Amino acid sequence: MSKQTKRTAISPRRDQNYPEWYQQVIKAADLAETSVVRGCMVIKPWGYALWENVKQQLGKMIKDAGYQDAYFPIFIPLRFFEKEAEHVEGFAKECAVVTHSRLQADGSGQLLPVSKLEEPLIVRPTSEVIIGESFSKWVKSYRDLPLKINQWANVVRWEMRTRMFLRTSEFLWHEGHAVHASAEEAKTEAIQNLNVYRTFVEDCMAMPVISGKKSESEKFPGADETYCIEAMMQDKKALQAGTSHFLGQHFARSSGIKFVNQDGDEEYGWTTSWGVSTRLIGGLIMTHSDDNGLVLPPRMAPVHVVILPMFNDENKSTVLEYCESVKLGLSAQKYHGLDLAVKVDTRDVRGGEKFWSWVKKGVPIILEIGMRDIDKGNVCLTRRDSLYTDKQFINKDTFVKTAQEILDDIQKVLFERAKEYREKNTVDIASKQAFYDFFESNESGFVRTHWSGDPKIEQTVKQDLGVTIRCLPLDENESGVCPFSGEFSKQRVIWSRSY
Amino acid sequence: MSKQTKRTAISPRRDQNYPEWYQQVIKAADLAETSVVRGCMVIKPWGYALWENVKQQLGKMIKDAGYQDAYFPIFIPLRFFEKEAEHVEGFAKECAVVTHSRLQADGSGQLLPVSKLEEPLIVRPTSEVIIGESFSKWVKSYRDLPLKINQWANVVRWEMRTRMFLRTSEFLWHEGHAVHASAEEAKTEAIQNLNVYRTFVEDCMAMPVISGKKSESEKFPGADETYCIEAMMQDKKALQAGTSHFLGQHFARSSGIKFVNQDGDEEYGWTTSWGVSTRLIGGLIMTHSDDNGLVLPPRMAPVHVVILPMFNDENKSTVLEYCESVKLGLSAQKYHGLDLAVKVDTRDVRGGEKFWSWVKKGVPIILEIGMRDIDKGNVCLTRRDSLYTDKQFINKDTFVKTAQEILDDIQKVLFERAKEYREKNTVDIASKQAFYDFFESNESGFVRTHWSGDPKIEQTVKQDLGVTIRCLPLDENESGVCPFSGEFSKQRVIWSRSY
Repeated sequence: MSKQTKRTAISPRRDQNYPEWYQQVIKAADLAETSVVRGCMVIKPWGYALWENVKQQLGKMIKDAGYQDAYFPIFIPLRFFEKEAEHVEGFAKECAVVTHSRLQADGSGQLLPVSKLEEPLIVRPTSEVIIGESFSKWVKSYRDLPLKINQWANVVRWEMRTRMFLRTSEFLWHEGHAVHASAEEAKTEAIQNLNVYRTFVEDCMAMPVISGKKSESEKFPGADETYCIEAMMQDKKALQAGTSHFLGQHFARSSGIKFVNQDGDEEYGWTTSWGVSTRLIGGLIMTHSDDNGLVLPPRMAPVHVVILPMFNDENKSTVLEYCESVKLGLSAQKYHGLDLAVKVDTRDVRGGEKFWSWVKKGVPIILEIGMRDIDKGNVCLTRRDSLYTDKQFINKDTFVKTAQEILDDIQKVLFERAKEYREKNTVDIASKQAFYDFFESNESGFVRTHWSGDPKIEQTVKQDLGVTIRCLPLDENESGVCPFSGEFSKQRVIWSRSY
Repeated sequence: MSKQTKRTAISPRRDQNYPEWYQQVIKAADLAETSVVRGCMVIKPWGYALWENVKQQLGKMIKDAGYQDAYFPIFIPLRFFEKEAEHVEGFAKECAVVTHSRLQADGSGQLLPVSKLEEPLIVRPTSEVIIGESFSKWVKSYRDLPLKINQWANVVRWEMRTRMFLRTSEFLWHEGHAVHASAEEAKTEAIQNLNVYRTFVEDCMAMPVISGKKSESEKFPGADETYCIEAMMQDKKALQAGTSHFLGQHFARSSGIKFVNQDGDEEYGWTTSWGVSTRLIGGLIMTHSDDNGLVLPPRMAPVHVVILPMFNDENKSTVLEYCESVKLGLSAQKYHGLDLAVKVDTRDVRGGEKFWSWVKKGVPIILEIGMRDIDKGNVCLTRRDSLYTDKQFINKDTFVKTAQEILDDIQKVLFERAKEYREKNTVDIASKQAFYDFFESNESGFVRTHWSGDPKIEQTVKQDLGVTIRCLPLDENESGVCPFSGEFSKQRVIWSRSY
């Protein structure tokens, strides 16, 4: 059957209406829904389980990188927020401001905010300032450095155009913050942290990414340098999946983070910060899912194997017993440090509907087990990554023994598929005309060109085409000629439309 | 040495100034500190690790009770917050209200809140209303029930008098919310959830608690019945450590949570909720700690065994190697499902100072290891629960083999000690005069009396003595005569001063 004629579980298909397809995948997998609060979403259990898998696996890597978890206030008093000028400039336009501490009914019974605060409080959009305030007390000497602290928290940015997971007014994230004794050490840390992200996102989420540096205009407000990982979605747009910042001494100066160095002199510290958010889940959905719904890489799946028993009144106990024995053999195993998660779905739901509900939820392996399979000592296996081509009848014990290998293979296939897609949709362009032709022809993708470094070029291209420099890849070092200005270019950069 | 003459690591001692002792224990253990935000605290790594242990162990129990984790918006639009009258009444006096979504500089450069919201948003003090809004969409039929959802989140209550961990404007908690098909089922759930708390708090935190029901005046705003666990601190005051609510149909009606029952008729659901917060850490500190600092029950300790190597330049490598071999033998073990956590402290700090730093942090077992111990194949062991009486020299391999038993024994000793303390300070009183004499003589403790059920008695006693009914214990059922009114009493209740 050709893709065009087959009925798919998700409508519209990706090629018909990508943004709407994305919303429908979320709905069909029951990941999240919009809420009554402007721009905020409700993360439902299946979606939250994905975030818990991020927390568990990335959380371990963050600890291994020497970060200790802590928790800081959600509110930032205005006078602290104001301290770093660029930072304020970047966040003042979109922040939730608490101004009152009490509600009281007026004459008509309508509740109104009363007890005005002496100083407004900003709901944290990020925590450099409030954590910096603590750091200024905790750091005294070079012996206290590096100081590395991590926080898992909610943050609020009053975004005007929101989209579930990708851009919401409130989101969940981790933010790591550190103080170092020198600029070199801080820069090295920022790049090491970026590598932690790349490893996590590629190995666990099966999302290939390009590690790079942001141009001046795309930097974090208050940073000297922002490093990022960029992924390509299936509409060929870029998604910034994580950022790591070298903050220079900006925040150390504004927060007063000073230390006595080995020579006995007092100097300002050098700070770094890094963060990834629930946005990663949006990237996960858009990287792997297909026209039948969510596709989960095994290392992110809340359930690795779902077993669908097919029985009638007569053979019910035989079938269920067989299914439980498969479950037992799997549940005893670990999968990359997590429990191998198996679910037997005994809901009273039609077989087809039940099967498709798990397809739409993206579970890597679906087993259908009826009397005919049991008689042969088999299970009937469907891999989510190759839904139509790969229904296999295999020996039960063989399956239990090789389940981890099959999961690893699915993980690998998804990564390779995404990488191939990105490579197929990445082009090198050497002339301005060809560049404009490419993006004006409604084509998308990653375009590699040389660039002189002039921010005016970025600005013009953005205005003309809605395309930005996603990053200056860290592994590019060939110099050349900027096609926009004819000037010298130190390295190629990557342009793309983006989320 | 008598307690009075010995110099203690914490000053003042408990018997000198209990509230100040509490602050000093927190400081000495480096658990938390006050922040620049009114009433909010910074939870430092050692304190946050305690909360992570709560999350990990209690979190598993909550999942085992059938709750799925999810996440709901931090903001509640005013029109939703208003829906449940008693609830608003209870929380309107102390809430953070977001009124603007942007900051802008005025003529003088001063940033001011602008872009006033059409409707104020309340920062969640608890999430019944916002979760109820989702529940009203998720629940359609009796087949959807019970619906059980849990959230780990931060909440804000604008408390006037705050104290670290015990009462802060922002705190961290879990809140479980469920919808049931009948009042009976909901009540049973509320009591089962209370039992989960009791099990966790007694078994993991080694805090003995009394399970009971709150009187009408102490109920959660909007609840039909509030159940609680109450613990006694070392100043003989009560700490409410957790609550579980039977909410009747109040929130189901205000949020429109309706379902079609088995007869095909539509009816309102019956809801429950339960929560414990970072307040538990305050209770943990006050239950076990002594005049030398924090004392941690092993099942809550971020580090179970700390090893202090004592060496000079000559024998350094021998000593460190021996210490690492002890660590290796321990780290391979699990302790009640957690990794047995061992730390070798090689900091360049004087031996005494180093030893006492871990005493103050409450680590259950401290090992000191020098050449003399190594020559004999020994370790020198100090148990935190019996600091002065129990320094033992024991064979290294014996220790590695029995470490879990020693930890379990410490856990048990702490629980028994706390339970004995509570029992010693609980009295039955049968006359109003004796009751007033007891509390007016500056005595504290738990006092058991009969009570007619009349809320006016509670009010009077509270005004006269600052003493409240902590709970109507679930295991009390002997009727008698109320000493305050002479009327019939269904059961004894527990009175105490409280946090």
